[in-house]
Amino acid sequence: MTDPLYKAAIVDLLGAIGYGEISAFERLTEDARMSPSLEDKLAILGMASAQYAKVAPITTRLSELGVDPYAAMEPFREPIDDFHAHTAPSDWWEGLVKAYVGDNLANDFYREFAVHLDAPTRDLIVSTVGDEGRSAFVVDRVRTGMAADPKLGGRLALWGRRIMGEALTQTQHVAATREALSELVAGERSIAGLDLAAVGEMFTRITQRHIERMARLGLAH
Amino acid sequence: MTDPLYKAAIVDLLGAIGYGEISAFERLTEDARMSPSLEDKLAILGMASAQYAKVAPITTRLSELGVDPYAAMEPFREPIDDFHAHTAPSDWWEGLVKAYVGDNLANDFYREFAVHLDAPTRDLIVSTVGDEGRSAFVVDRVRTGMAADPKLGGRLALWGRRIMGEALTQTQHVAATREALSELVAGERSIAGLDLAAVGEMFTRITQRHIERMARLGLAH
Repeated sequence: MTDPLYKAAIVDLLGAIGYGEISAFERLTEDARMSPSLEDKLAILGMASAQYAKVAPITTRLSELGVDPYAAMEPFREPIDDFHAHTAPSDWWEGLVKAYVGDNLANDFYREFAVHLDAPTRDLIVSTVGDEGRSAFVVDRVRTGMAADPKLGGRLALWGRRIMGEALTQTQHVAATREALSELVAGERSIAGLDLAAVGEMFTRITQRHIERMARLGLAH
Repeated sequence: MTDPLYKAAIVDLLGAIGYGEISAFERLTEDARMSPSLEDKLAILGMASAQYAKVAPITTRLSELGVDPYAAMEPFREPIDDFHAHTAPSDWWEGLVKAYVGDNLANDFYREFAVHLDAPTRDLIVSTVGDEGRSAFVVDRVRTGMAADPKLGGRLALWGRRIMGEALTQTQHVAATREALSELVAGERSIAGLDLAAVGEMFTRITQRHIERMARLGLAH
């Protein structure tokens, strides 16, 4: 934390994750309105609630670093809100796929960052990115839905691609505007041992995991 | 639980509380959009999240009673949704007052029922109706807001009365349609030791606590 650029990058990363959790809470709750049953709605609200529990450790750590946690989140409101605005599900199925695919895309990204960071920050981030049974619920529901409606798969496959595309768009937007964070990724100062080849490999791994999740849902990527 | 009417009343009560918690979760999250800051928003989302944690014990108990928990909630969707539709806050301040006054009105009502019930049901209900620091947060924010804007108090006093009025309207609607539950209140069969005089006293106590809460906010009732 003695390198000011490293600290700025960590503050950005924690701010992005913190706002991402808050925003996911709100969107999941909003999307839960489309649930076909109260039981399904409650499952989605449980996912939202799990996001909430992850915010406090992030704000605590930012405060320890001498930073106002809400100021740290502020720069990420626009790209994350834009991501959600551009991937607003039009029905229950799109909401389900987004809850699983979109959230895990963000988690993969954070996890990739985490391995290059100091141990306390890494442990904090890793503890916030669990899937907590979300996968099993969504895979079960989506596969059941597709069995009942053979046309659903094609539409949801396109939808998953759109979520991936929008996530990359907003990531690039963040990289273009947050100098410390983008240098952490691009490794111009090799702050965290990343270089451009490593960045390329990182995107390959993230894409690969996305494809695996789509496959688990029974969807073409 | 050997008296079928008593069991039906308990199932209704737990169903109402369970759907009430789910519904409060959703409305709090929706109202949190009007928060003036991310910090305030997070405080409201914390209240929502606390509601979620209370649902599982209710659904578990309903299942133990051999009842589908979601079917038990179903009759209360309309009156509770109507309550929220008729008390949709138009700004942050109305949302705050509703979060505190509305939720505690419901809690008082459940608490009054609970004392007349069998011990396991009573303990379950009492454990779901805590305020969990909500009061301190809302009182602080509302009093600060009123200090900055002297006109706010008059408007919020009317708003608190409207919440009370709507709560009574929906309670009457439920009493008129749910036989077992209303007999539990009215004591026609003295199921739970309640009689009409006791019902009158109950409403007096609930009204008194509402007045006390309004006073704590610095509002005329």
